[in-house]
Amino acid sequence: MDAKKLAGEKAIEFVKNDMIVGLGTGSTVYWAILKIGGLVKQGLRIKGVPTSIQTEQLANELGIPLVGLSSINQIDLTIDGADEANEEFELIKGGGGALLREKMVASISKRMVVVMDETKYVPNLGKFPLPVEITQFGWEMTRRQISALGCEPALRLKDNIPFITDNGNYILDCHFGEILDANKLNQTLNMIPGVVENGLFVNMADTMVIGNRNGHVDIFYKS
Amino acid sequence: MDAKKLAGEKAIEFVKNDMIVGLGTGSTVYWAILKIGGLVKQGLRIKGVPTSIQTEQLANELGIPLVGLSSINQIDLTIDGADEANEEFELIKGGGGALLREKMVASISKRMVVVMDETKYVPNLGKFPLPVEITQFGWEMTRRQISALGCEPALRLKDNIPFITDNGNYILDCHFGEILDANKLNQTLNMIPGVVENGLFVNMADTMVIGNRNGHVDIFYKS
Repeated sequence: MDAKKLAGEKAIEFVKNDMIVGLGTGSTVYWAILKIGGLVKQGLRIKGVPTSIQTEQLANELGIPLVGLSSINQIDLTIDGADEANEEFELIKGGGGALLREKMVASISKRMVVVMDETKYVPNLGKFPLPVEITQFGWEMTRRQISALGCEPALRLKDNIPFITDNGNYILDCHFGEILDANKLNQTLNMIPGVVENGLFVNMADTMVIGNRNGHVDIFYKS
Repeated sequence: MDAKKLAGEKAIEFVKNDMIVGLGTGSTVYWAILKIGGLVKQGLRIKGVPTSIQTEQLANELGIPLVGLSSINQIDLTIDGADEANEEFELIKGGGGALLREKMVASISKRMVVVMDETKYVPNLGKFPLPVEITQFGWEMTRRQISALGCEPALRLKDNIPFITDNGNYILDCHFGEILDANKLNQTLNMIPGVVENGLFVNMADTMVIGNRNGHVDIFYKS
């Protein structure tokens, strides 16, 4: 069984008529969007808010009506993936480089359902390098300040030159190894001048849908 | 007497040989830079770190040797102005639009001397609108989230179009009226996705040099 497909398709049970739905990006949420497209053809009335150009194109192809962040105050439900998640419902996101847009969408969502396969669900965050979006100006200084927190920040490259985000910034992939206090690290990073945003999502997810290779799907709700 | 000139020139007493000195921007620190230029001609050995293109040009004209943020770990002393300061040594900066660069420089300075005339020294911060640098993407959403903190954010314009910072971002000038907990507001703002940095400087300044119209200069040291 495809664990990602299982999780993605299961998550659409949370989608109801007349909702504004945040549509995440990635290989697991892809299956959710595909299924939402099918339901829209059968009469489901929702409006989607895409977190990337890629998702926007997919939604357009499937005929899912979209709405921009500029014209809404709140999102009813967001379905998105994660690079890592722990049992505290804390996430690392941003492997794809769109962490700011994803965090904006999550921050105005009443409910965030995270879909993943079992390999993403870990006892401690931090094996996956934490993406941190930083301004180009003074980036070496910002890297030194982040390095002092106990990690090895690597400037993300693409085709041997620095990767540039949609917002014109750099990404540092920060190998912390083990993140024991995600809430504190999230705040500490964002208080460093030069840090635009980081990939820790704390107090955002409240439902996790985890697909397993054996065909079983676990759903965890934050109490 | 020119209160700004008085304060700016007084501040150079803190500059010593072999220091790396952060050089701020504005009409008060201008007088400090001018005087440092004179002392350099007489043999003072310092290296300056400019917080703006404007200051970089002035320092070059005056023959002050400069060094970039990329190649240093620490600044010995920064002299900079403020739009407002209170007796807690908390500041509002960024009226000129360079708050990120100024905050970067301040964040690695062992000592920060703030120069101002008496009109900038206020019982409570917040009469001067707080500049908040935000990403262009999703800016209306970010504005709504800041607005919910109890202020009226106005998109800064220049020649009737949005002002763009050196980092390609917008500035919201946020009229809070009265800021009673600058430390908390500083953190709350920076945790909003879309906020790059804000103009509150907390636990950064430790010396204030205040020029008065009557010709007197007050120097306050943080205990």
